[in-house]
Amino acid sequence: MLTQDKTQRNWKPIIKEFQAVLGKKGVIERREELITYECDGLSSYRQRPNVAVLPRTTEQVAAVVKICNKYSVPFIARGSGTGLSGGALPIEDCVLIVTSLMRQILNIDLDNQRVIVQPGVINNWVTQAVSGAGFYYAPDPSSQIICSIGGNVAENSGGVHCLKYGVTTNHILELKVVTPTGEIVNLGGQVPETPGYDLTGVFVGSEGTLGIATEITLRILKTPESICVLLADFTSVEAAGAAVSDIISAGIIPGGMEMMDNMSINAVEDVTALNVYPRDAVAILLVEIDGLEVEVKVNKQRVIDICKHNGARNVTSASDPEQRLKLWKGRKAAFAAAGHLSPDYYVQDGVIPRTQLPYVLKEIESLSEKSGYKIANVFHAGDGNLHPLILYDNSVEGALEKVEEVGGEILKLCVKVGGSISGEHGIGADKRCYMPNMFTKADLDTMQFVREVFNPKGLANPEKIFPTPRTCGEAARTVTENNQKFVGVDRY
Amino acid sequence: MLTQDKTQRNWKPIIKEFQAVLGKKGVIERREELITYECDGLSSYRQRPNVAVLPRTTEQVAAVVKICNKYSVPFIARGSGTGLSGGALPIEDCVLIVTSLMRQILNIDLDNQRVIVQPGVINNWVTQAVSGAGFYYAPDPSSQIICSIGGNVAENSGGVHCLKYGVTTNHILELKVVTPTGEIVNLGGQVPETPGYDLTGVFVGSEGTLGIATEITLRILKTPESICVLLADFTSVEAAGAAVSDIISAGIIPGGMEMMDNMSINAVEDVTALNVYPRDAVAILLVEIDGLEVEVKVNKQRVIDICKHNGARNVTSASDPEQRLKLWKGRKAAFAAAGHLSPDYYVQDGVIPRTQLPYVLKEIESLSEKSGYKIANVFHAGDGNLHPLILYDNSVEGALEKVEEVGGEILKLCVKVGGSISGEHGIGADKRCYMPNMFTKADLDTMQFVREVFNPKGLANPEKIFPTPRTCGEAARTVTENNQKFVGVDRY
Repeated sequence: MLTQDKTQRNWKPIIKEFQAVLGKKGVIERREELITYECDGLSSYRQRPNVAVLPRTTEQVAAVVKICNKYSVPFIARGSGTGLSGGALPIEDCVLIVTSLMRQILNIDLDNQRVIVQPGVINNWVTQAVSGAGFYYAPDPSSQIICSIGGNVAENSGGVHCLKYGVTTNHILELKVVTPTGEIVNLGGQVPETPGYDLTGVFVGSEGTLGIATEITLRILKTPESICVLLADFTSVEAAGAAVSDIISAGIIPGGMEMMDNMSINAVEDVTALNVYPRDAVAILLVEIDGLEVEVKVNKQRVIDICKHNGARNVTSASDPEQRLKLWKGRKAAFAAAGHLSPDYYVQDGVIPRTQLPYVLKEIESLSEKSGYKIANVFHAGDGNLHPLILYDNSVEGALEKVEEVGGEILKLCVKVGGSISGEHGIGADKRCYMPNMFTKADLDTMQFVREVFNPKGLANPEKIFPTPRTCGEAARTVTENNQKFVGVDRY
Repeated sequence: MLTQDKTQRNWKPIIKEFQAVLGKKGVIERREELITYECDGLSSYRQRPNVAVLPRTTEQVAAVVKICNKYSVPFIARGSGTGLSGGALPIEDCVLIVTSLMRQILNIDLDNQRVIVQPGVINNWVTQAVSGAGFYYAPDPSSQIICSIGGNVAENSGGVHCLKYGVTTNHILELKVVTPTGEIVNLGGQVPETPGYDLTGVFVGSEGTLGIATEITLRILKTPESICVLLADFTSVEAAGAAVSDIISAGIIPGGMEMMDNMSINAVEDVTALNVYPRDAVAILLVEIDGLEVEVKVNKQRVIDICKHNGARNVTSASDPEQRLKLWKGRKAAFAAAGHLSPDYYVQDGVIPRTQLPYVLKEIESLSEKSGYKIANVFHAGDGNLHPLILYDNSVEGALEKVEEVGGEILKLCVKVGGSISGEHGIGADKRCYMPNMFTKADLDTMQFVREVFNPKGLANPEKIFPTPRTCGEAARTVTENNQKFVGVDRY
C-alpha cells in the first residue's frame, strides 16, 4: 500500500514494537480500519491516525507510551469517541491509544462507596453495577449509554445531575495514571482530600494532555428514596428563566433543571414521537426533585408554585420510573434530534451566571437573526450551562466557517457577562482559539508550564486546549521544542 | 540592638523599600513586637521572623513580594496564625507577610450566591454578613471565630459541616493571587468549572507555597429551613462507630457528625461547665440534621432509631438555636479543653476509611498504653477524620519528641488502612517528614515540579509540605537551587 505519511516517518519498527506488547490484534494499521478513528463527536474535523493501538492493562499503556517516547511519536488517547470538542481528534502523524478493551470494573466497595474501573468502562455501567444495592454514579452526560469514564475524566464531563451533585471532578477519588513519559503514578487517594497539591484535580479535565488514566476510583452515591420529575410549560423564555432563578433563590437544589426552547421541543417530538412535550410551549423546564419522600413532596409543591407564579401554563409531574424516563428521554435525545432539523448542527457549550439568562438568550436570538442561522437552545438551566445548537448545511461552501463564527460570538458573549467558554464539553481542538478571550497570557503560560511538568516532550495530545499563534481553524504548522513537526488537522 | 541574624543579611535597604510601599506603620521590625509572630497554632515550634509587613491591598502584596524577589528573601504569608501544622511558621531569615489588615468584604452578590473577600477576613464574618438574607458560608473550622479565609484557602480547611458540604476547595470560585514572583493573576472564575487546568484547585491547600491569595470569591449557601442536633450516648466506641456507618449506609448525610470519647467529654465538661454531655458515656455522637422541616423530622427519627439499634443509652435532641449552639460549643472547645487535662497536648489529624474506625481506635488505645501517654479522641466521624489529642508535659525533657513519635505512628496507621496523613490541618512544617509514607518519590517530585512553575526561586514558604533529606524534627541546613541558605526552625 502506498504510504501517504507526509512526515516520511518509518512506522514499521514502531508498529513491530507495538505488536510485541499488544499482539497483532491489538494494533490497527490498515487505512480502511482506521476510518472509525478519524474523528470524535466533533465530526466536522477529521484526521486519520497512522496507527491505533488497543491495550488491555496499565502496563500495556505504559509500554505503548514508552515506545512513543522512544520514537518521539505524538499519541492521543480515545475512549468512546463521543467528545464534542475534538479532544480525541487525531493529528497527522500520530498514534491513537484506544481504551475500548479496558472495560473491566475492577472493584466495588459498597461500604466505602467506591468503585474502581478501567477507563473504557461505559458511564452507565457503573450505575448498573451498583443500582441493585441502592447506589448510583452521579455524573450523567447525555451520552452516558456510550461515553467512557476515561473520556469523562479527560473532559471533566457534566450532565443533568451535576447541578446538585457536581461534575466528574467531584466524584473522582484516585487515579492511576500513565504519564506522557510512560511512568505509572497514583494521584489522589481512597479517602477524599489527600494532602499536597491537588494533582487529581489538575488531571481531571486536562483532556489527555497530562497522561492517560488507566484505573479510576469513583465515588458512588446512595440512590434517593424518592424522585419526581416536573415538566413546566412557559409562553416565554424569560418567564422560564425567572422561574429557574426563583427556584434556586428559594434554596431548592433540584437533582436537575433543564430548559428547552420551542425549536428543540418540536425537533424532539418529531424524532421521538414521545408525545410528552407541549409543541406550542415557547420554553419548557424539566425539574427533577430527589430526596426523602416527604422532602420531595414539599419541594415538588414549592417548584409548582414558583413556576405558576412565573406564568407557567401547566406543570405536570412524573414519579414512577417509566414516566420519568420518558420525560428525560426527550431531553437526552435533543442533540440527535437537532440533526433532523437541518443537515448539520454545531453544538456550542458556554456558561453564564444564572442571572444573565434572559439577556444572553435575547442576544443569541439577535445573533441568529443577523447571521440567518437558526439556533435551537437546550441547556442545563440550573447552572447556567448553555447548549445553543446552530443549524446549518455543511454542503454549502463556507457555511461551517460562518457557523463557527456565530458560535464564537456566543462564547465571547458568555465571557462578557462573567461566564466561561466551556461548561462540560472541554476545549479540545475546537475552542482553543477562544482561550485568550477568557485567560490572560500569564494564565495560559502558567497552565502550559504545568503541562510541561507532566508532558515535557509535548507528545501527549498536542494541539489541544492551548491556542497556538495560528488563527482559529486554519491548518498550519507548529514546531515543537524538539523540532518534531506537527501538521494541523484537515477540515472535511 | 545586637542583631542575631546568622546569615548576616543587611536588612536596612530591604526594610526601607518595604516602608516606601507600606509606610512605617506597615513594617514591624522591633524584636519585641515580632514575638507575636514567632509561631502559629503549632506552638511547639518557634522562630522569630526578621521583619513582618502588613499590606492592605493586592498591589501592596505584589510590591512586597517583588522586593523579596529583588533581595532573594524568603517570605511566608500569615493569616490569623491559628494553623495547627506550622504552615505560617517563620523560618530564620525571612519576611512574614501578615494579612490582618486585609479585612474587607469587597462584594456580596446574593443573586449569584458569591461573596468576594480579602484574605484577612475572619471565617465567621462571611456567614454574619449574609445570614440576615438567609445564606451562610459552609466550611467551619473549630477556630472559625478567629481564623482567616486566606488561611483556610492555604490549608484547605475543613470543619464540622464539611461532611455534607465539602471542604474549602469546594467553596472557592475564583482567586486573585500574587505569585511568588510578584505577578498578579486570576485563577478560576465567577462561574464554577472554568476550562483549562484547574489551577484554583492546586492553589487551595498549597499552604502558601504557590503564592498569596489577595481576593477570594466564595460560594455561599442558603441557610436550611430546619436544623436539629442529636446527642447520642454510647457505652462503647465500637457501638458509636457502628452507628456512624449505619447512618451513612442508610443514605443520610448529616450536616455534621462528630464523635468524642470519654476523656474529651470530661475535659469539655470540666472547662465549659455546660452540663450537656453525659460524663459517664464512653463515646458520644453529635449528629446535625438539616434541610426542610419534614426532611429533618424523618431523618431525625431514622438517626435516633439507628443509634438505639446500635446500643445508644439515650438520644437527646435540640432544635432551637440556643440549645443547638450549646451542644456544639462543647465540641468546638474540645481542643482548648484538652489543655486542662495536661500541661500540653499535641493534636494529630489523620483520615481513615470510615469502615476502619473500630480497628484504628483500638490500635490508638494500644499505642497510648505502650507509650504511657493518654490520648483523647475527638473527630469528624462522618468522614473518618481523626483528631487524637496526645497529652504530655513539655517541660519533661524529650517528651515532645516521644509524643511526635506516637503521633507519627498514628499517621502510619492511617496510611496503612488506606487513609491519609492529613484531613484538614495541612502538612506545614509538622508533617512533611511523613509525606513519603503516603507518596512515592515520583509523586512528590511531580508536586515539586508544579511548585517550581509558580515558585521558581523557592522563596514562597520554603521548608513546608515537602520533606527534605533531613530526618523529621531535626534542625538542619538545606541548600536551595540558587544557593540561598535556609536554616531549619529551632525547637522550643
